[in-house]
Parts: sequence; C-alpha cells; structure tokens
Amino acid sequence: MSTASVAPIAPRGEEVRVFAPASLSNLGPGFDVLGLALAAPGDIVLARRSATPGVRILRATGGVPLEADANTAGVAARETLRRAGMTDVGIELEVEKGMPIGTGMGSSAASAAAAAVAVNLLLGSPLRKQELIGACVEAEARVAGRHGDNVSPSLLGGLVLVRSLDPPDVVRLPVPEDLMVAVATPAFELSTRVARAALPESAPLRSLVHSTANIAALVAACYSGDLALLARSLDEDVVVPVRAALIPGAREVMRAALDAGALGSSISGAGPSIFALCHSEARARAVARAMEAAFLQYGRLAASTIVSPADAPGARAL
Amino acid sequence: MSTASVAPIAPRGEEVRVFAPASLSNLGPGFDVLGLALAAPGDIVLARRSATPGVRILRATGGVPLEADANTAGVAARETLRRAGMTDVGIELEVEKGMPIGTGMGSSAASAAAAAVAVNLLLGSPLRKQELIGACVEAEARVAGRHGDNVSPSLLGGLVLVRSLDPPDVVRLPVPEDLMVAVATPAFELSTRVARAALPESAPLRSLVHSTANIAALVAACYSGDLALLARSLDEDVVVPVRAALIPGAREVMRAALDAGALGSSISGAGPSIFALCHSEARARAVARAMEAAFLQYGRLAASTIVSPADAPGARAL
Repeated sequence: MSTASVAPIAPRGEEVRVFAPASLSNLGPGFDVLGLALAAPGDIVLARRSATPGVRILRATGGVPLEADANTAGVAARETLRRAGMTDVGIELEVEKGMPIGTGMGSSAASAAAAAVAVNLLLGSPLRKQELIGACVEAEARVAGRHGDNVSPSLLGGLVLVRSLDPPDVVRLPVPEDLMVAVATPAFELSTRVARAALPESAPLRSLVHSTANIAALVAACYSGDLALLARSLDEDVVVPVRAALIPGAREVMRAALDAGALGSSISGAGPSIFALCHSEARARAVARAMEAAFLQYGRLAASTIVSPADAPGARAL
Repeated sequence: MSTASVAPIAPRGEEVRVFAPASLSNLGPGFDVLGLALAAPGDIVLARRSATPGVRILRATGGVPLEADANTAGVAARETLRRAGMTDVGIELEVEKGMPIGTGMGSSAASAAAAAVAVNLLLGSPLRKQELIGACVEAEARVAGRHGDNVSPSLLGGLVLVRSLDPPDVVRLPVPEDLMVAVATPAFELSTRVARAALPESAPLRSLVHSTANIAALVAACYSGDLALLARSLDEDVVVPVRAALIPGAREVMRAALDAGALGSSISGAGPSIFALCHSEARARAVARAMEAAFLQYGRLAASTIVSPADAPGARAL
C-alpha cells in the first residue's frame, strides 16, 4: 500500500463509474504470460459507498451472477477492500457487461478490473493500479483459472507481460507504432473450463525451446519496432494446436489472416476468438473481413469482428 | 550470399589468424536460446590457402582430432566453402585451443567460429557473419548437439538470442551498461553427451509458463536496463536442476554467488561451469572468489575463475 497523496475516502452515497476494456491473452508463445488491452468492448462497473460493511451486487447485466463471491467484480471489490485494510467499508456494485462471457477476450477480467479500480477510487486511491493486479487475479481464479494475462492489460492498458503472479510482477512492453489488432469472434460456445481441461499437462523439451525462443524474439521486436521479427515470433505449438482443434475453422481463419496481410495470428485466451496483428488500420480492417469470411466458409459460423489499436488504454473512471 | 563489396579471393599461401571467444550458453531460462560471448579465453585458428581442394587440419592443440570431419573447425571450414560455392578451394588449418573442451563454455563453438571467419576472409568475405552461423551450427551438431547459442555469440559477440536454427534467425540483444559476468569452472569432467542424456524429454506446462515468462522479462530487462528485473528473471526449473544435480556443489555455488551480491547465477552450457551476472567489475571479482570458495567447500573441487564484460566482441582477425 502506498501512503503518499491518498485522497480522503468518499462519503457514503458517493459513486464512481469505471470502464475496463476487453483483452487478448495467451498471445502467441505467451500462454498465461502475454496480454493486450482492446479499445472496446469493455465492462462498466458502478460502485457506491453504502452503510452496510462488505460488498453487494445490486444489478448485473449479461447473465452473470449477483452473488459477490461468484462474480469477478464482487471478488475483486472484496479483495481490494481487504488489501486496503478497509473491510469495514460498505460497497454496492452495478455491473454492465459490454461483452458476452466465454469469448476468450477477458470478460471476467474486465469486470474484475473495473470493480477494483472503482472501489479503490472510492477509498481515496490507497492502492496503485499495479497493486490491484493481485486482487483481480484472485477474482479470475474463481471463474477462469489463476492467470494474470487478462486482468493486467485490462487494468494497465497496452501490451503486458506477466512475469510472476506470486507476488504479481508485470512489465508493460512498448508497442510498435501503428500496430493494430483484428479480432474475429465466432458464434460458438467454448467454455474456459473445457478448453483448459483439453490442455496437455506437459510439453516436449523442443516445444519449450520453441516457445522461449519465440517469446524472447517477440519482446525484442516490441522494443526494437522490428515488425518482420514480430511476424516470425508468434508461433506456438503446445497450446494453440490443441485449442484450434476445438474451434471449427480456426486453422483456416488464422491462415486467411496471414493471406490477407496480417503479421501473425493466433487464438486469444481459451478461444474461440482469433486475433491477428497488423501494421496499419486499413490492413487490420481487411484482415478482419477475411477472418469473418473464413469462419463462415470453413467453420460454418457467423463471426463478429473488432479492430483496435494495440496500445489501447486500461481501466479508467468515466 | 551477399554480392556487394566482396574482396578478391586471397592468393595461394596467404594466411589469416582469427580469434573467437568462449561463450556462456543456456543462460537461465534460455536453454538452447540465449548465449553470451566472453572476452577470453578463446580459440585461434590459422587458415591458409593451399593448392589441394578441400580442408585439412595440419595441427591442433588441446587434444582435439585432426580429422576435418571430427573437428568443429574442419567442419565449419568445409561448410563455409560449400555455402560460398567455392568447394574447389584448398584450405589448411592450424587450431590453437585456448581452453579445454567440456567446460560448458563453448570450446567447440569457438573453434568453429574462428575457422568459419578465417575461411570467409580468405575467400574475400563473400558471406556475412550472420550467414556463417549455419556453417558453425552444422559443426556443433557433430560434437555437441544441434544448437546455436554458443556459435552465435562466439561469432557476433555480446548477448545473442537464437530464435530459430532453420534457417538461422538470431537477434543481438542490448546489454545493460557495465554488466559483467563471473564464471567458475571446477576441475570436474562432465561430457556434453552425458549432460544432454540426463535432460528430461518433456516439461510440465507450468514450467513452460515459468520459462517463457522469465525469458520475456529477461529480454525486457536488457532493453530497459532494469537490473532488478534482470535479477528476478534468471530462474529456470526444467534443465538447471537436473544439471545442478550432476555437478558437486553446484547449488551451493549459485547460492554463494547471490550471497556475494550477484544479480543472478546459473549453469553455463551443459556445465560444469557456473556463471553469475553482476552490476560492476568489482562485484564480479568478489562473486568469482565466492564461487571458487564454494566449489572447494561444498564440491571439494578446485575451480578456476573468469571475469568478463557481458558485451565482449565476437570473432575477429588478429
């Protein structure tokens, strides 16, 4: 907890509204390690100081549970109170989901990030954003496995490397200028739990070398702005093939993205969303159309698409 | 093969002498992926144009074979001729080993790098140094497994990331200012073959995440100059523990390095050399003494030590 320049706690009844963006995770060789914030969509959490100690969720859209313990916004809010040493404070939440759950774009993480930032603001900002990561990881762990590569970019924005969770140790990586992402999300249900269960328990040593070599090159490419190196560094052969096999048309969609000029393409999170990195907005729009068409042709699935800058901002008060 | 500004081939009888440095490899989480050139020791290869096509080794110190096919200098020389399209040229080599083999400091790679650069110089430099990496990797493959994290720094100098071998794709990483390495080499024979055979065939998925997270952070630390992050990023839990168990006192030596103020410590190559990264030359000297003492105390082994800048130059004509 930082002690410098902490604002006074908000009076009872005062409220804040915080937006936290969707995020790509498991970026290429960065399984559980690399995530990226999108400009939109995202979740909005309204938090209000109330007289009753503890966290209650008054309203939630999108079919997510109202029980604070089963909702990542609720868990993150409680964890934020706990870490700030202010569990006697009462908080009421309203959660407006801006995206469906189960698309692989960090829906549960966005709710957690928005709630953590909102509660911290009401408390007078005793915790820095980096200190909210642990609270959000605990929330994620309730519903989507213990990983930090969605909550970290959703909180901080941009491209974030999660070196460690215990304690949280994250690095914001520089994003090459004008880098854009295209995302295609098919109308296909794939639960994170099923996708996680399909993961292999181990990887051949040569795959470990392949992944470490590629993620190291990807980070180097981000610092040096070498887009050709970035394009060569997105491959992964442990998790992505397993998950691609669960998503109709996934391989053809990634191929279509490359054929349309993407630097690279892979699965976001547990899927079924597929993303592509592109060197310009015009290219990203063309790639998004190509991915949508490929989902329809090869997966027989309608897909929605998103185009976003690769260094979108993180959670913030509205 | 580049065609610009190629010098004429040297006349028969002309000779060059090239030094190539020893190198650390398997740096922390960079098994088969990250290597670093040392200022010294190194090997010297003298190459001379002769009338008889092909490569012959006239003399070699250090007990390495004279058969060109069994000596990395010979193989690298032949591969360099082949890649330059000049297999009709005759080359005589003399190899002066500046270090013993089997210490984990890239002895076979140094001979290969020196020979490749020497032959290329005699040919009028038709190949760039980056193009010599493949020739040296083929040489390494004959004696020490197919990996590029010794030959690449031995050729190019500094800290080098090997993203791929087929084709060779390497990145020179920036080295934080004043970064030094201390190395302790115990009087203990450990063959690369035995050390490779002891490797696990696979790694748990959580270890893959640990390695990708750490190597990504290590690369970020090199670009940003964040020595504290560098210090947190050297851990590896797949290969290093297995090899540490083969080297008497290894764990205690790495611990002694940290206790003496090293940023991090790990095993170089297949061992038995152990290295430590340090933020100053004075610290590196103290760490080297501590490692030497720990090898004696806990491994009952005498050890020699080296201190070197972390961005030493690569192979060059003398």
